[in-house]
Amino acid sequence: MNYSFAPQTKTYQSSAVRDILKVTQQGHVISFAGGLPAEDIFPLEQVKIAYEKVFASGNSSLQYGLTEGFKPLRDAIQTKMEPKGISSNPDNILITTGSQQVIDLFARIMLSEGDVVLTEDPTYLSALQVFRSYGAHVVAVKSDDHGMEPEDLKAKMEILRPKFVYIIPTFSNPDGKVWNNERRQNLLNLCYEYNVLVLEDDPYGDIQFHQDEEYHPVAAFDTYQSHVLYTSTFSKSVVPALRTGWVTGPIEVIRMMAQAKQMNDLHSSSIDQQALYYLLRDFNLTSHINLLRSEYYYRMTIMRDYLSKLGSDLFTWKEPKGGMFMWVEGCEQLNTTNLLSKAVDNGVAFVPGAPFYVDRPKNNTFRLNFSHSTPDMIKLGMDRLVEVLLPATTQV
Amino acid sequence: MNYSFAPQTKTYQSSAVRDILKVTQQGHVISFAGGLPAEDIFPLEQVKIAYEKVFASGNSSLQYGLTEGFKPLRDAIQTKMEPKGISSNPDNILITTGSQQVIDLFARIMLSEGDVVLTEDPTYLSALQVFRSYGAHVVAVKSDDHGMEPEDLKAKMEILRPKFVYIIPTFSNPDGKVWNNERRQNLLNLCYEYNVLVLEDDPYGDIQFHQDEEYHPVAAFDTYQSHVLYTSTFSKSVVPALRTGWVTGPIEVIRMMAQAKQMNDLHSSSIDQQALYYLLRDFNLTSHINLLRSEYYYRMTIMRDYLSKLGSDLFTWKEPKGGMFMWVEGCEQLNTTNLLSKAVDNGVAFVPGAPFYVDRPKNNTFRLNFSHSTPDMIKLGMDRLVEVLLPATTQV
Repeated sequence: MNYSFAPQTKTYQSSAVRDILKVTQQGHVISFAGGLPAEDIFPLEQVKIAYEKVFASGNSSLQYGLTEGFKPLRDAIQTKMEPKGISSNPDNILITTGSQQVIDLFARIMLSEGDVVLTEDPTYLSALQVFRSYGAHVVAVKSDDHGMEPEDLKAKMEILRPKFVYIIPTFSNPDGKVWNNERRQNLLNLCYEYNVLVLEDDPYGDIQFHQDEEYHPVAAFDTYQSHVLYTSTFSKSVVPALRTGWVTGPIEVIRMMAQAKQMNDLHSSSIDQQALYYLLRDFNLTSHINLLRSEYYYRMTIMRDYLSKLGSDLFTWKEPKGGMFMWVEGCEQLNTTNLLSKAVDNGVAFVPGAPFYVDRPKNNTFRLNFSHSTPDMIKLGMDRLVEVLLPATTQV
Repeated sequence: MNYSFAPQTKTYQSSAVRDILKVTQQGHVISFAGGLPAEDIFPLEQVKIAYEKVFASGNSSLQYGLTEGFKPLRDAIQTKMEPKGISSNPDNILITTGSQQVIDLFARIMLSEGDVVLTEDPTYLSALQVFRSYGAHVVAVKSDDHGMEPEDLKAKMEILRPKFVYIIPTFSNPDGKVWNNERRQNLLNLCYEYNVLVLEDDPYGDIQFHQDEEYHPVAAFDTYQSHVLYTSTFSKSVVPALRTGWVTGPIEVIRMMAQAKQMNDLHSSSIDQQALYYLLRDFNLTSHINLLRSEYYYRMTIMRDYLSKLGSDLFTWKEPKGGMFMWVEGCEQLNTTNLLSKAVDNGVAFVPGAPFYVDRPKNNTFRLNFSHSTPDMIKLGMDRLVEVLLPATTQV
């Protein structure tokens, strides 16, 4: 049978990252591809204890819950956001199946055919796919190391009247960038001026390597919670399998997203939400996050030292100040999409940079994840990677 | 700020069922409103043991999983569907956050503005909302006690060329109806003739009161798995908090839905999926379902006996052969939406029938759930309900 899918499915494509994940899960490939956290330091015992507490609370723990999410967890999330300068309240918080669902639900309630979304370039490829699946026209704003450039941003707001701006301002995916405070404030000022919303995606904000530096989410500048939707997740700081994220922002927007979520899946797993509540209550998450920070920093330095040896004439990259990724640009002749199959044959995987670009992809870029592999595996994987990288740059 | 949501949000409305649930969760109201299973017979101990097995399997149980779902669970679901006559395979199965997500993802990949969906009337109100949120025009097909009437169905397929037909053919929500096999086969024949898909929603099929009767899902007639998408859930037969459902059908459609799910939430909670796998492997689900069947049947009879006493001149209803609901039609003057607040004041809740209708709602109908309340609570609740129902029908 010839299935007549809706026209918007023409924009669908299986994410390159997921496809590679599928391949690398099966073999002996060391994968720097996915955005997976370190499995070896998951707080398994603490997670187990948290679930025991859920079941000890009785049969009602297994019943249907509210679309908005488990109230005590929303209370805990409010408290968790306070040190970041975000003042919220449980009614302004919606619990979701990871922050991916936030991106999708927000796009769903905001976008229709032909609407404009402004983004960084490169940016999270799955967000690009979501926006396009709702018919949006994604437009990249010129950026430097400190964030979006004010002139270009203002011009594009003025001319294109976007529905919203999507950003990952702190340890960005894929390029690890951190916006400075001036650029954050500037974005918000322009949003006030042109009445445009911001979707601030902050999955990596907790994983900060240098504690003497202070980063404030754009949401912290939005004193009256009127223009910023802030989303984060426990997938990176606790465990991904829980699939628990959240969004906070203007009550009208949160309510509309809750209605969309009701149609989408009624509510996310309430067993997981309750377990997370007990985990936040009884487990020292701060000390666990500190462990992640120092371990991920260490793993990054191993990868960095390999890249340093490659020579800055062939490869350029910046040392990330947090997060999970290194972003590398090779010499112009390098095509990392073509290189990937050779790398996988040699037992190592990365993500080519092209799909992270809005348009005009730089085919000589790639992303490396340093959080998932153990230090020994990073060394082995980088040995393998260098074996295919160097010939690729010198042959051409 | 005035938020400019997408035009399709104009179709959104908070589901009446969920709004009532919110009210009744807080007070001392006995609720026959929601579609909640019996909390007092949840297999809490077995669920707890299943989660222990997940964590005993080690750290990898907490990592990201595949969008399609945990493979051993898909294997188990394939086996579970065999006795129903559905031959599937794990590649044709997608695990979702409840069957609600199946309805949403299927609508998302199939529908665009102006497309037609055929449904029963009344039918699951949240499905109506989902279809409309994608711009579809929902058209009711004339039905009698045995299913959709062949002539009207054929005429509407011929003239309207629908994208798909949505049905709950076994112990329907809201009216508990069961289609006979002839009507099931007839629907499928017409779908073959006009190249139309079926979304068969079967959350209640396991809860069958009379074991001497045999029901075959429409999917079981679709030998080559070409035209029917079959969805079911563990929310009713195990526990709702797991939020785990699935869909099986043509591989092209399942793959497209998986791509939509990837954008929607990457994957559903894999901790819950793994727990469910152990539960299906080690727990006698069949005997648990038998317990549910006999207990729900008993609860239904209590409610039935109350309704019988009301007199068939004022109220008409049919004894359900399974599922969780009784559907009652009062005399023409009765307005159950108006009656609801009086009922809640008197300590009992139901769902007015109007929102379950595609168009031309019968305002004198209502739905009663008999699975959630214990037998004693059903008696008390029915006493309270009769106190407000009788004056409402005689006063007018």
